[in-house]
Amino acid sequence: MKELAERIIAEGIDLGGGILKVDSFLNHQVDPILLFHCGKALAGYFYQHAPTKILTAEISGIAPALMAGLELGIPVVYARKHKPITMANGVFLATAPSHTKGGEITLMVSGDFLKPNDRVLVIDDFLASGETIVALARLVKAARATLIGFGAVIEKAFEGGREKLKPWGVPVFALSRILSMDSGKITVEES
Amino acid sequence: MKELAERIIAEGIDLGGGILKVDSFLNHQVDPILLFHCGKALAGYFYQHAPTKILTAEISGIAPALMAGLELGIPVVYARKHKPITMANGVFLATAPSHTKGGEITLMVSGDFLKPNDRVLVIDDFLASGETIVALARLVKAARATLIGFGAVIEKAFEGGREKLKPWGVPVFALSRILSMDSGKITVEES
Repeated sequence: MKELAERIIAEGIDLGGGILKVDSFLNHQVDPILLFHCGKALAGYFYQHAPTKILTAEISGIAPALMAGLELGIPVVYARKHKPITMANGVFLATAPSHTKGGEITLMVSGDFLKPNDRVLVIDDFLASGETIVALARLVKAARATLIGFGAVIEKAFEGGREKLKPWGVPVFALSRILSMDSGKITVEES
Repeated sequence: MKELAERIIAEGIDLGGGILKVDSFLNHQVDPILLFHCGKALAGYFYQHAPTKILTAEISGIAPALMAGLELGIPVVYARKHKPITMANGVFLATAPSHTKGGEITLMVSGDFLKPNDRVLVIDDFLASGETIVALARLVKAARATLIGFGAVIEKAFEGGREKLKPWGVPVFALSRILSMDSGKITVEES
């Protein structure tokens, strides 16, 4: 996706340690029109697999998931990291280590919104180590729903997350792939 | 907004203590098409005030803010509640008590994304006590940007938040107003 790759090159900041800051259009400030295009592209790729629901993780996954859901006309569920008092029992849990926050996060989804007849597309902002996305896939499995694919806005290809997703046997699609970040120079491959 | 009022009546759950659970379309599972319509309605109301940026708070404010931003063609900034390692110095802070989580929350916005020449529309999912929205307004003020209005998807009119927003002297618009929640019966006024 050319528009996205250009924004990453123009505005992405390599913070070192493999961390890419894209706070100006994806993670703190969001460009709704760019994200609308990202959602359209993700929806177009996965449409043939007939998803009935999108699962993402709060917080930064919400924008691309919502825009893909808008295009596909299906609900978006965001797994929560902090249990709100409105969340009752019957909750699926999965844990993942967090690289940008440190420690471990627990993802929670109410059993009301993931059912065995759902065909679930997992979407997140980043595919990096793959840990968060695998945790989302585990939630799908715990609900005995059908996983149909993994979508991401930006893949950090050098972190090997794609390998971790292989055993799930579903398509993986990222809108742009960062091949390397060396001394501040970011190399992006369009999808 | 008729479509929204109908969903609140059909799916909203009165948890007692003034807490309304709308997890099936707004707060955990999101209906992107409903939110697209909410965003269009908010955008239509505030368009005349020429906003250049939308400010909301993570997490549940993101969906309506993003959809209003899509319609207006302007960026959306979400104030963070937990400082990510990608957030550098030059951050504006404001605190607010949290009724659904307990304790106090701190909202943070990078100074990179709120500037004195910005005309800021504050949007959140709920206008309840008004504390979170006032905290967002304080962030706008701290950045010496211009506040142009307050928008919400659902107002809990019986919590008096609208009164707290009056001193700011800008329009307040909610897409639906809950007049009362008594013994599980929810009374909604359309906007």
